[in-house]
Amino acid sequence: MKLNPPIFVLNCKAYLEATGKKAVELAKIADEVSKDTGVSFFIIPQLTDIALVSKEVDNVLVFAPHLDPIKPGAHTGYVLAEAVKEAGAAGVLINHAERTLKLSDIRTAVERARDAELLSMVCANTPLEAKAIASLKPDLMIPEPPELIGTGKAAVRAIKDFVPEAVKAVKDVDPSIIVIVGAGITYPRDAEQTIKMGADGTGGATFIIKAKDRKKTLIEMAKATRRGWASRSQ
Amino acid sequence: MKLNPPIFVLNCKAYLEATGKKAVELAKIADEVSKDTGVSFFIIPQLTDIALVSKEVDNVLVFAPHLDPIKPGAHTGYVLAEAVKEAGAAGVLINHAERTLKLSDIRTAVERARDAELLSMVCANTPLEAKAIASLKPDLMIPEPPELIGTGKAAVRAIKDFVPEAVKAVKDVDPSIIVIVGAGITYPRDAEQTIKMGADGTGGATFIIKAKDRKKTLIEMAKATRRGWASRSQ
Amino acid sequence: MKLNPPIFVLNCKAYLEATGKKAVELAKIADEVSKDTGVSFFIIPQLTDIALVSKEVDNVLVFAPHLDPIKPGAHTGYVLAEAVKEAGAAGVLINHAERTLKLSDIRTAVERARDAELLSMVCANTPLEAKAIASLKPDLMIPEPPELIGTGKAAVRAIKDFVPEAVKAVKDVDPSIIVIVGAGITYPRDAEQTIKMGADGTGGATFIIKAKDRKKTLIEMAKATRRGWASRSQ
Amino acid sequence: MKLNPPIFVLNCKAYLEATGKKAVELAKIADEVSKDTGVSFFIIPQLTDIALVSKEVDNVLVFAPHLDPIKPGAHTGYVLAEAVKEAGAAGVLINHAERTLKLSDIRTAVERARDAELLSMVCANTPLEAKAIASLKPDLMIPEPPELIGTGKAAVRAIKDFVPEAVKAVKDVDPSIIVIVGAGITYPRDAEQTIKMGADGTGGATFIIKAKDRKKTLIEMAKATRRGWASRSQ
Repeated sequence: MKLNPPIFVLNCKAYLEATGKKAVELAKIADEVSKDTGVSFFIIPQLTDIALVSKEVDNVLVFAPHLDPIKPGAHTGYVLAEAVKEAGAAGVLINHAERTLKLSDIRTAVERARDAELLSMVCANTPLEAKAIASLKPDLMIPEPPELIGTGKAAVRAIKDFVPEAVKAVKDVDPSIIVIVGAGITYPRDAEQTIKMGADGTGGATFIIKAKDRKKTLIEMAKATRRGWASRSQ
Repeated sequence: MKLNPPIFVLNCKAYLEATGKKAVELAKIADEVSKDTGVSFFIIPQLTDIALVSKEVDNVLVFAPHLDPIKPGAHTGYVLAEAVKEAGAAGVLINHAERTLKLSDIRTAVERARDAELLSMVCANTPLEAKAIASLKPDLMIPEPPELIGTGKAAVRAIKDFVPEAVKAVKDVDPSIIVIVGAGITYPRDAEQTIKMGADGTGGATFIIKAKDRKKTLIEMAKATRRGWASRSQ
Repeated sequence: MKLNPPIFVLNCKAYLEATGKKAVELAKIADEVSKDTGVSFFIIPQLTDIALVSKEVDNVLVFAPHLDPIKPGAHTGYVLAEAVKEAGAAGVLINHAERTLKLSDIRTAVERARDAELLSMVCANTPLEAKAIASLKPDLMIPEPPELIGTGKAAVRAIKDFVPEAVKAVKDVDPSIIVIVGAGITYPRDAEQTIKMGADGTGGATFIIKAKDRKKTLIEMAKATRRGWASRSQ
Repeated sequence: MKLNPPIFVLNCKAYLEATGKKAVELAKIADEVSKDTGVSFFIIPQLTDIALVSKEVDNVLVFAPHLDPIKPGAHTGYVLAEAVKEAGAAGVLINHAERTLKLSDIRTAVERARDAELLSMVCANTPLEAKAIASLKPDLMIPEPPELIGTGKAAVRAIKDFVPEAVKAVKDVDPSIIVIVGAGITYPRDAEQTIKMGADGTGGATFIIKAKDRKKTLIEMAKATRRGWASRSQ
């Protein structure tokens, strides 16, 4: 699958405001904003919402919020790559700071995603972890300082050099890996700066999901993402 | 929700033969068999299949294969009671031998299921564990010797007194808890005997999912379940 | 082993002030206070300190801070009952709120402790959990509200009825289980009240380990424990 | 600390034959064999045996079998770097196939070992994992195919190219990391071949611990290790 940066990732987490019908509504808004702005959108609904959301979007790529390192078989309650694929997902998020995995399970989950033709997007807490995970050949990575997630303090503002160091850590190992940097993205300028400093994408969760006007917020974020990207190609 | 024993539980686990469309097909067969035989059926599809399966059945109750002990919020990749409910499930399976939980998380998951008006069905490995879990007030319990699951050796045949001891362990603490006993159910007489010896229900996974003729197998199991139940009311 | 309430449990956790030689010093103080006051003392050093501490005490019983549900064999990095026993421990703490276990592992750890002739002392977060765990036949239990641990808010002060409810939950299932209630014990009157309201013992960690004068603090706690106990036998 | 390859690692796991006094006996034998053969020996006793073993050896380095990613504080039942150090260990084993860790915890455990001046030795299941972990800057690594551990099928015999690929995966990232390859080492020639093919060391557990004559077995292993090493420097 060809990916077109810049990318904006919208994580529904387990918020009621982004569960079931409300996840579908949010995905539809992202779908429209993606079409209007040319920014690639990924949405990460809950596992039980993947099938519903997938049917309702054209442009947005749907990612599962977790994948278990299992093969088909007797694994009650685990998340199987083939099931995620059949439900309509384009990819899977692995090792989010709220759902971290054993190293060995990250490796296996990336392999299982590849088996099922799903994009693998793996989170890392630090540039050092990002370097380690890049060796495991995921398609995309999301380095995020976990202590900033959900705080309103964007990594790009709070930790000088986090974005360029994290991007470099990954690209030095494998320049084909797409690097998205988030954590605490609150203002459009956070998104713009994150992309400007080298990320192929950015994203948000809490701030967007809790926004009064989600559509307006997503449009502003998409435009800022595009501005950041445009400034790099000059 | 009023439950009518005898009950037959069909666990799809993470088998490809019971994923996506094939989970829906299997659920439809169970739906028909339930209507024809008067046996209550529960089906446990994968998390990503709950929404699809729920829309296609009338008689069968759909259970999620796992529930996390979380409240709505920032919990990427975890299973939220409210999301499971909105996807159409009637209940949740908790602590299956393939996906065991901390004691404290079992307690919280049972509470979260109740909050979301989902039935809670908790597995236990031994009569002693069954007694302990019964204190946590689930709606249903499934005592199963984990070493027999998927082996073709039914608990009722392999461990003398397992069924009556497990049922007694639960009912002594709380007679309102419905007790289902499975593990290794292969032949109709396994189902019949399990019910005869005191269980309110039984169930299967591997043997039924891998059966050449699933409908025939389910009909035989349902009839045997009913025979076992009838023999008790005499 | 015959246990003589009232009991005071001193948990070293992973505090530097109670590591290695400092754990030995603390244990010696507790040993002396136990002899002088007639209060039974348990000390819970780190795993690596059990052997050193055990050799230096006469009255105090040493407990391991954790036990894994394993049998002897290929289990690198896990805590084996027989090894804990040979190192000199009299018992093991299981399922502390900082190191919670799966229900099935609690059951097995209690059994493994019994195999190795170690006392099992299992923690529980709530009276409901305490009731569940009591079914698993541990020798002692410690119900503690985890949200109060280390806060300076004693359960006996902060949650009306916690002590009597937790004690009753356990004793209703098995009156032979000794019930110790801690969490946030800061002042001698916390210890006194906890025992008065029905606990067979109490204990502390942070407040005692960080105390300027540990001996004085332990003496006051021991006396308060004895006062609480005396008031019950009147 | 200066390390002198070749190295032979002796893992006591949780075998009764290498618990308590028997761990001390085994360590003393290794100590003597190390002195006599010039091969560096590491021994990995159980956590509770580190203090006893450390006092009794002069040449052998003692490693803890596990380290938790914690700082000093309220962490009941976890393994603290400073406590391991004070008990006399020279290093810690991290992420053994029988006790695997989250990626983030491996990173933190390596850092905590460094803080406490302990050598960090991290296991990896595959060359790809070895490459990832090498980025986290451990002092030593042990790539081992987990499916061969304890089987009597040495990696060097069973998987063509495992040793050179695993060594290269690590050294390409950081040539200063010492690479030990084990799994299934049964005959002296397994040790010899493993070193010959590029490993800085090798080791064993089950086969040595269960040997009739442990001293003889260790001497043969040490000599084979030395032969393998000598053949490389020619």
